[in-house]
Amino acid sequence: MYQVYAFSTPNSVKVPIALEELGLQYELHLVNVRKGEQKHADFVALNPNGKVPVLRDGEHGFTLSESAAILVYLAERHGALLAQEPVTRARTFEQLFVHASGLSPAFGQAGYFLRSAPSGSSEHALDRFAQEARRQLGLLDAVLSARAFVAGDDFSIADIAHFGWIWRRTFPDLTLDDMPNVQRWYDAVSNRPAVGRAIARIESLVEDRQAA
Amino acid sequence: MYQVYAFSTPNSVKVPIALEELGLQYELHLVNVRKGEQKHADFVALNPNGKVPVLRDGEHGFTLSESAAILVYLAERHGALLAQEPVTRARTFEQLFVHASGLSPAFGQAGYFLRSAPSGSSEHALDRFAQEARRQLGLLDAVLSARAFVAGDDFSIADIAHFGWIWRRTFPDLTLDDMPNVQRWYDAVSNRPAVGRAIARIESLVEDRQAA
Repeated sequence: MYQVYAFSTPNSVKVPIALEELGLQYELHLVNVRKGEQKHADFVALNPNGKVPVLRDGEHGFTLSESAAILVYLAERHGALLAQEPVTRARTFEQLFVHASGLSPAFGQAGYFLRSAPSGSSEHALDRFAQEARRQLGLLDAVLSARAFVAGDDFSIADIAHFGWIWRRTFPDLTLDDMPNVQRWYDAVSNRPAVGRAIARIESLVEDRQAA
Repeated sequence: MYQVYAFSTPNSVKVPIALEELGLQYELHLVNVRKGEQKHADFVALNPNGKVPVLRDGEHGFTLSESAAILVYLAERHGALLAQEPVTRARTFEQLFVHASGLSPAFGQAGYFLRSAPSGSSEHALDRFAQEARRQLGLLDAVLSARAFVAGDDFSIADIAHFGWIWRRTFPDLTLDDMPNVQRWYDAVSNRPAVGRAIARIESLVEDRQAA
């Protein structure tokens, strides 16, 4: 049985989505990042980087961090969501790293400087990251103008990676109004039953914790 | 024959290093990012994201961007520098994504806000990214206190990924003075003949262009 340590964040949601798509059993453990629980000693023992999500593979006795590394691990171990054919496989990794190194940091920093940075201190940084986040969204729209999914004809772990931040796009104050290809793709991914189950499960756990 | 479009940047250098480690032939094409050549139409046709490096695989007729995706592609196609054993393989991807999503953006933004941002506009951003870059370097030092290389006992593409920014650590004004494990690892990687050949080849091309 897989153990997943997560919250309702753009990176966390990827892991339950992959597990649901693969039809696997897992236990979900909430790490409330709004209360800083990812910096508590018991969680830092799992991931010294102090970030969700973390996957614990009980059968093979090891612990893995980094959402995209978890996606690659699950896809390879269970033989799905990652093409064997070299060109499509390369496109999948290209989009995983576009997401990790480009879109995700831009969305995260744009949201931070918009909402959390000391006011009046960071106009240049806010402009810089807001502009880069919009540029990344435009690049994704161009990719999806030529492909059904981000790496080709089939849904893959690269779609799961990009989905997290597009799902949470209000944090950096972005919309899909001028992004028809991302909108079409987002609707298709959102409507997948496994995606719906994963989001419902993680949000229900967050609500339970808030009500407790 | 592989075609590599690159400059003497932290991300670019990874591709010649991997090709030299694998003993492969390649042609190196300089894209002078100091002159903005990565935004020229002929380069943007290769990579709409306007970033080096890019690999062109002439034999298989396709073009790939994202340095870490290029490392994965080369390692899988040529059967080296990426373990098959699942746990070491997972650790390799974990470090590739730590690099792509954590260390690399922190080093890049810390250097940008230190050197290139409009003065007086961004103290908070400079503090934020300088602190995160130091934190990432400390996490890498802790990883390397327990392992010879970043993903285990053997040199891998994750070492090549991390090497680029540690090689260029003066851009974000970092040193290895308090990082004995990173220093030991950096010396070992720098002394590999293939790494020396790759750096010499890319720096010689940069010097030729500057002299022309």
